[in-house]
Amino acid sequence: MSKRVVLAYSGGVDTTACIPYLRHEMGADFIVAMAADLGQGDELAPIREKALVAGADVSIVVDAKERFVSEFGFPAIQANALYDGQYPLSSALGRPLIGELLVETAHEYDCNAVAHGCTGKGNDQVRLDLTVGLLDSGLEILAPARVWSFSRADTIAYSEKYGIEPHVSKEKPWAIDLNILGRNVEAGLIEDLSWEPTEEVWSLTTAPEAAPDTAGYVTIGFEGGIPVTLDGERLAPLELLGRLNTLGGGHAVGRIDMLENRVVGVKSRELYEAPGMLLLIRAHQELENLTLPVDMLNQKRQLEATYSKTVYDGLWHGPLRAALDAFVGSTQRTVTGEITLKLYKGGMSVAARSAERSMYRHELVTYGNDCTFDQSSAEGFIDIFSLPSRVWNKVNG
Amino acid sequence: MSKRVVLAYSGGVDTTACIPYLRHEMGADFIVAMAADLGQGDELAPIREKALVAGADVSIVVDAKERFVSEFGFPAIQANALYDGQYPLSSALGRPLIGELLVETAHEYDCNAVAHGCTGKGNDQVRLDLTVGLLDSGLEILAPARVWSFSRADTIAYSEKYGIEPHVSKEKPWAIDLNILGRNVEAGLIEDLSWEPTEEVWSLTTAPEAAPDTAGYVTIGFEGGIPVTLDGERLAPLELLGRLNTLGGGHAVGRIDMLENRVVGVKSRELYEAPGMLLLIRAHQELENLTLPVDMLNQKRQLEATYSKTVYDGLWHGPLRAALDAFVGSTQRTVTGEITLKLYKGGMSVAARSAERSMYRHELVTYGNDCTFDQSSAEGFIDIFSLPSRVWNKVNG
Amino acid sequence: MSKRVVLAYSGGVDTTACIPYLRHEMGADFIVAMAADLGQGDELAPIREKALVAGADVSIVVDAKERFVSEFGFPAIQANALYDGQYPLSSALGRPLIGELLVETAHEYDCNAVAHGCTGKGNDQVRLDLTVGLLDSGLEILAPARVWSFSRADTIAYSEKYGIEPHVSKEKPWAIDLNILGRNVEAGLIEDLSWEPTEEVWSLTTAPEAAPDTAGYVTIGFEGGIPVTLDGERLAPLELLGRLNTLGGGHAVGRIDMLENRVVGVKSRELYEAPGMLLLIRAHQELENLTLPVDMLNQKRQLEATYSKTVYDGLWHGPLRAALDAFVGSTQRTVTGEITLKLYKGGMSVAARSAERSMYRHELVTYGNDCTFDQSSAEGFIDIFSLPSRVWNKVNG
Amino acid sequence: MSKRVVLAYSGGVDTTACIPYLRHEMGADFIVAMAADLGQGDELAPIREKALVAGADVSIVVDAKERFVSEFGFPAIQANALYDGQYPLSSALGRPLIGELLVETAHEYDCNAVAHGCTGKGNDQVRLDLTVGLLDSGLEILAPARVWSFSRADTIAYSEKYGIEPHVSKEKPWAIDLNILGRNVEAGLIEDLSWEPTEEVWSLTTAPEAAPDTAGYVTIGFEGGIPVTLDGERLAPLELLGRLNTLGGGHAVGRIDMLENRVVGVKSRELYEAPGMLLLIRAHQELENLTLPVDMLNQKRQLEATYSKTVYDGLWHGPLRAALDAFVGSTQRTVTGEITLKLYKGGMSVAARSAERSMYRHELVTYGNDCTFDQSSAEGFIDIFSLPSRVWNKVNG
Repeated sequence: MSKRVVLAYSGGVDTTACIPYLRHEMGADFIVAMAADLGQGDELAPIREKALVAGADVSIVVDAKERFVSEFGFPAIQANALYDGQYPLSSALGRPLIGELLVETAHEYDCNAVAHGCTGKGNDQVRLDLTVGLLDSGLEILAPARVWSFSRADTIAYSEKYGIEPHVSKEKPWAIDLNILGRNVEAGLIEDLSWEPTEEVWSLTTAPEAAPDTAGYVTIGFEGGIPVTLDGERLAPLELLGRLNTLGGGHAVGRIDMLENRVVGVKSRELYEAPGMLLLIRAHQELENLTLPVDMLNQKRQLEATYSKTVYDGLWHGPLRAALDAFVGSTQRTVTGEITLKLYKGGMSVAARSAERSMYRHELVTYGNDCTFDQSSAEGFIDIFSLPSRVWNKVNG
Repeated sequence: MSKRVVLAYSGGVDTTACIPYLRHEMGADFIVAMAADLGQGDELAPIREKALVAGADVSIVVDAKERFVSEFGFPAIQANALYDGQYPLSSALGRPLIGELLVETAHEYDCNAVAHGCTGKGNDQVRLDLTVGLLDSGLEILAPARVWSFSRADTIAYSEKYGIEPHVSKEKPWAIDLNILGRNVEAGLIEDLSWEPTEEVWSLTTAPEAAPDTAGYVTIGFEGGIPVTLDGERLAPLELLGRLNTLGGGHAVGRIDMLENRVVGVKSRELYEAPGMLLLIRAHQELENLTLPVDMLNQKRQLEATYSKTVYDGLWHGPLRAALDAFVGSTQRTVTGEITLKLYKGGMSVAARSAERSMYRHELVTYGNDCTFDQSSAEGFIDIFSLPSRVWNKVNG
Repeated sequence: MSKRVVLAYSGGVDTTACIPYLRHEMGADFIVAMAADLGQGDELAPIREKALVAGADVSIVVDAKERFVSEFGFPAIQANALYDGQYPLSSALGRPLIGELLVETAHEYDCNAVAHGCTGKGNDQVRLDLTVGLLDSGLEILAPARVWSFSRADTIAYSEKYGIEPHVSKEKPWAIDLNILGRNVEAGLIEDLSWEPTEEVWSLTTAPEAAPDTAGYVTIGFEGGIPVTLDGERLAPLELLGRLNTLGGGHAVGRIDMLENRVVGVKSRELYEAPGMLLLIRAHQELENLTLPVDMLNQKRQLEATYSKTVYDGLWHGPLRAALDAFVGSTQRTVTGEITLKLYKGGMSVAARSAERSMYRHELVTYGNDCTFDQSSAEGFIDIFSLPSRVWNKVNG
Repeated sequence: MSKRVVLAYSGGVDTTACIPYLRHEMGADFIVAMAADLGQGDELAPIREKALVAGADVSIVVDAKERFVSEFGFPAIQANALYDGQYPLSSALGRPLIGELLVETAHEYDCNAVAHGCTGKGNDQVRLDLTVGLLDSGLEILAPARVWSFSRADTIAYSEKYGIEPHVSKEKPWAIDLNILGRNVEAGLIEDLSWEPTEEVWSLTTAPEAAPDTAGYVTIGFEGGIPVTLDGERLAPLELLGRLNTLGGGHAVGRIDMLENRVVGVKSRELYEAPGMLLLIRAHQELENLTLPVDMLNQKRQLEATYSKTVYDGLWHGPLRAALDAFVGSTQRTVTGEITLKLYKGGMSVAARSAERSMYRHELVTYGNDCTFDQSSAEGFIDIFSLPSRVWNKVNG
C-alpha cells in the first residue's frame, strides 16, 4: 500500500525539512502540505509555493479564521477557560483545529497518514496526536522532528541536501507561535527565570509605560454568553476579537509571564499575549457573577479548571470536553448583558455592569429604607446554619 | 441568674447604642465593652472612654494586631485564600479573632453572654455567631441591631435618650470596615452597579493615574510558605505587611470592585483595598508554582476555593478549616525562596523567581544542546496517554 | 383579595387537620385538596372523599406514577444518584413532583397560595418550599404543621372539634413514606442507634434469612442510559421498575439503614427500602464502567455526589440540576448494553456484562499471544509519568 | 563501575528467570534477591534457597507483615481508600512497601540498581518505578520482563538453559497476587466478561451459598480512626486484620468482581478478595458518619477518591499523598467508638453504632416531646436558603 501523508505545514525551517524527510526517510509516496490560516498574519501565497519547492505533491492553504474564533474561541470564553487561572489557551485551542483540518484533508486526498513537525518535548505533539486519535484512529501519525534528533544546523544542512534554501532570517533568541487568539513566546532567553522580558519579546502589546495616559473604556455586550457587540455595535466574531486585540494591546493589556506544567511532566516558562481573549473572559466572568446563582457559579468555576486542563492536554475532541460543554451551554441561557471594562497602562478593571436578568437585587441588599430582605429570617437561618458547629463544640469542645 | 454580657465594641453609633439597649431592653446586668485593635488605626483611648460614658461597667481595649497577622493573615496566605478568586478575606478573617476575644473576655469576666452590633443582612453576624458557637456553645448571643429595626435617626434618638451624644460627623455615603489586612467599603452609592467609584471612596490606595511614573520592585522572601523578608531585610509579620500595604497602595495596587455572594443568599457589591495581602498571595502562588509538583498544585488550588469559602462563611474555628490547614501545612515545607514583583500604576506582575528547591529544571526543558529530556519517551507516553481516546474513536467514531 | 389555597393532601391525620386549620386559623377562603398518586398504593377514592369531609372545597387525585418514574426516577438512574453513596433519593425525588403538581393545580384553580403538612424538622418542607419558589415565587406557602406546635393528641382533638373522625388505627411506632421508587421509615424506635430493626419495620423486602435458597438472576438492558428491557423483554418504565421492586425485594435486596445529614443541620437515622432503584443504579454504573472512558467516569462520579446533594436539598427544579443533567445527558449516548445481576439473600453482584460499544478490549489487556498492547510504550510512559516524582526526589529527597 | 542489583524476588517462574537474565543479558555483577513477606503465606525458606540456586549472590527474606498493616493498611482505612469505590487497594498498597524495601536493601548492599519482574501492561511496574523514583532517583531500574518478550515456554526454556528447574505445577488459568490485605486474581478466563467465576477461583472466601445459615456479628472498636478491638478484645494490627479476614471470609464477605481502569490506559477485569479490609472500611465510614460534621464528611469523601487514585497510581511516597494524609489525620481525632457489623451469606450491614463523641443528638432529631430543635428557625432558614431560587424564578421564571 502506498503511503500518502498530509503534513501540517507552517513554512518554517522545521516543517519544510519534514517534506524531504517524510519522502526519503519515512517512505511517503505522496505528500500534501496543508497550511492552516488561524490568523497568524503570515503571507500565505509564498508559504504555499515553498512547500511545492520542498517537494510536496500538493500544497493548500485553508482559511480557518472564522471557524477558529466561532467554534473554538467563543466556547472557551463561555467556559472562562484559563489554564492555571492565567493562560487563555490560544495555542492549545489552535491544535485541535489543525488536527481537524489534517483529518479532513487526509480524507479528501485519500491519505492514510498525517504528519507534523513538533518535537518530543512540547505540548503540541500531544495535542495533535490526540486529536487525530480521537477523529480517525486509523490514520498513522508521523512526527519527523520527534525522531530525527537534528540540531538547527543539521536541519538546515539536511534541507540544503534536497535543494531547499531555508529562509533563515536573523533568528530571534526564542520561539513564537501566533494566531488570532494570542501569541506565545518560549525557549531561549525565556528559560532563564531571573530574566525580565525586554520589549522586543512582545509584539501584540504596548509596554505599560508607553501606553496612553488616559484610560480607555469598552463595553462588551453578550447574548447567551457569546460576545456580540462592542460599545453597542454588533460585530462578527473575527472582527470583534480583532478590535479587542488592538484596543487591549494598545493599553498594554494581555501580557502573561508564567510557569506552566506541560503535559509531558516538566515545568516551563511561557510568555503569552492575548489581549482580546483576556478582556472577553474577564467581562464574561463578571456578567456570570451578575446573572447566575451562587451554587451554579461555584460548580462552574470548579469545572472551568477541568475544562481548561482538558483542552490544554489536547482532548478538545474527546467526550469529556463535550460533556463539560453541555454543562456550560446549559448555564449560558441567561448570560446576556453588558460589561464595561476600563483599560489603563496594563491594568483592566470592571467599570460598569448591567443585565436585564440581573440577579443582583438592590431592594434585597440595600441598607436603605426600601429594603425587602427580612432580617428576622437571619436568626432562624443562623440557628440552623450553626447547628452542626454548636453540636461539634458541645461534644468535642 | 444575672445576665453578664461582653460586647464587641467599635466606638461607632450602632455599637454605642447597643450598650443602653442591652441593659434596658435585653436585661443585661453587667456589660463589658471589648474593643479589639486589629490595626484599624482609630485612637483607642477615646473609644475606651466612650463605652464607659454609654454605660458599660468595664471597658477594655485588646491589642491583637500581631496575633491577627501571624495567626490569621499568614495562614491565609499559605492557602492563597481569595474568595471568588478576588477578595483576600480581610474583614472575614477579623471576625473569628474578634469572636475569640469575646469568648476569652467572657471567661475572664465570668459572663454568660456575648453581644455584637451587626445587622441581619450581612456576613459578619454569621461569622461572629458561628465563632462563638464553635468556641463556647454555652454562651448566649445577643444582637440588638438584628432585632431593633431602628433607622439611623432612631438609633441616634435612642442613644440621646440615655444621654449619649453620638459623634456623628458628616457621614460618608457608604460603610467602612478597616483592619491591617485590608479595607472594605459597601452600601450607599456603591449599591448602584453602574456607578464607577470616585477617588474619595478609596483610602489605602493611590489612583492608578496618580501613581509614580516609574515602576516599583519588591522582592519577597518566604520560608516554608511564610513571608519573612522584603528586599532581603528580615521583618516581623506586622511590619512586613504594613510596608507592603504602603508600597502597594502607593503604586495603586490592591483595589477590588466585585459582586459577591453573601452567606445570607444575596448578591452585593463590595469594594476592597488590600495591597499587602494581594502582593503576598501573588508572590506566594508563584513560589508554589516553582517549588510544588503539578498534582499537588492542582489539588491545592481546588482546596483553596473551599478554604476561602469556609473562612468567608465564618467557619474559621471549625474542624474542616483545621483539616484543610493540615493539608496546606504539609505542602509548605519546600515553599522557600524569593519572588520579585513589579508594581506599576495599579498593575502587578512577577519580575523574577528563585528557590533553592526549584522544580523548574532548565536542563529538562531547554531546547538547547544540554537537554536531558529523553524525547524518545514521548512516543511511548503519547501512545499510552492517547489509548483511551483511540479506543473511544474505534468503538464510537 | 381572597386567599385560595392548594394543599398537598395525603389522607393522614396531619394533612387532614391542615384543612380546618387553613380555613379557621390561616384565613383560607377556598381550599383544593390535591392528592398525588406516586405509587404509594393507598386506596385513593376514600382519600378523595376524606378531604371533602374535612372541609375542602375541591378534592382531586392526580395519577403521576408514569411521570414520576420517567421524568424523575430514570434521570436519577442516569446520574447514579445516591445520597451519601447509599440512598437512591426515593422520597427526595417525590417532593419536586408534588411541588410541580401543587403549582399546576394552583394555576388551574386560580389559587394564590399552596400548603403542605410538613413539620419544621425534616427535609420535605425545604424541598416543597424550594420547588414552589423555583416554579412560581409569587405563590404564598402555608405550612400549618410548622407553626401549630400540636402534639399527636392535640392534632386529633383539633380535628374532632371540626367534626373530623381521624382514622387512627393502632399506630406504628415510626413514620413511613412510600412511593414507587422506594419506602422510608424513620422516627420512634429507629431513633435509638443501638436498635437493630426487627422484621415488622420492613415491608418491600423479605428478610435475608427468609429469602430463597437459590440465587436469582436478572438481565437489565439499557439504551442511552435508560433501562428498557428485563431479560430481553421490553417494558414500560413503571412496569419495569415494579417488577424489579418485586424481584429484588423477594431476594432481600434493597434495605438501607443509614445515618443521614439532613438539610436542616441534624444527623438522623433513616431506613429505606428501594430494591428496584438499587438494582438499576448498580447495573447502570457497571454499564458505564464498560462503555465510558476513564476521564469521563472520574468527572461524572464526582458530579454524581453534587447531583445527589442538589436533589436531596430540594433543588431539582433549579438551574444547577439542569446543567448537571446536561452533562449527564451528554455522557449517556453510548451507554447501551446489558448487565446481568445475581441476587442472593440480600446481596447483589454483577454476573455478566455486554455492550456493543464496549471500551473493554480483550486484545489490549490479555496476557495471551494475541495482545496488541505495545509494551515498549510503557517505558516511555513511565519515564514521563514519573518525571515530576524524580525531580521532586532530586530536589527535596 | 560494577552493576550491583537488588531484585524484588517472589520465587515464581518469572522473577526466577530474571536472575540469570540480569546477569547474562543486562550486565549485573552482583545480585541480591530480596523476598518481602507481606503475608502471602508462602513457605519462605525454600524461596530463599531457590534464589541462590538461580544464581543470586545474596538471598534475603524480609518479614514486613506488621509494617505493612500498620503503616500502609491502617492509614488506608482512615482514608476509606477504595479505588472506584470498590477495591481496597490490597496489591496497590504492597508495591510501595516492596519499593521501600528494595531501596533500603540497595543502600545496605551498596547497590546502584534495583530490578523487578513486572511486565509492561500492568500497574505494578508503574508503582515500583515511581516508588524508587520518589525514594532514590539515582538508582537505575531494570525490568527484564518488560523487555524480553518471552512467552511462558520461552521463560522456562531460558531458565533451564541456566540449570534452573522451574517448579511448574499444573498451572492455574489465571494469575494471583496475595498478601495480608487481600488477594487479586486476573487474566486467563477472567478476561471473558461473560464468564461468572466458579468457586475454584476464590480462596479467602466461602461461597455465599455455602456460608453459615446463621448471621455472624462483630463489634469493631476504633480509637482516633485506628481499629484496636474486636468484640472488646484489644488486638495488635496484624492479629486484628487476620481474624477479620477469617471471620468475613467464612461468611462469604469480601468478594469483588470489577472492571478497572489501569494506569496504562486500558480497562481490565479484576477479581479481589479482601474481607478484613472491607469490614474495617465499612465500619470506619459509619463511625465517621456518627462523629464528623457534614461539611467535613463531604470534603473528606471527595478527597478519598483522590487519595485512592493517588495510591493506585503508585504515588504513595509522593508529597500529595502525604498532604492528603495530613488532612485525613486532622479529621480522625474524634473518630473513636464502636460499630457492630452483621455478616450473612456474602452481605454485610451495620447493626449498631456508638461513640462517646457522637454528633447524633437524639434530642435534636426526635419527633417526641423532649425535642430541643427550634422549629421556628426552619422558616427563617428556608427563607434565606431559598432566596437565590426565588430571585432566579422572579428574574427568569
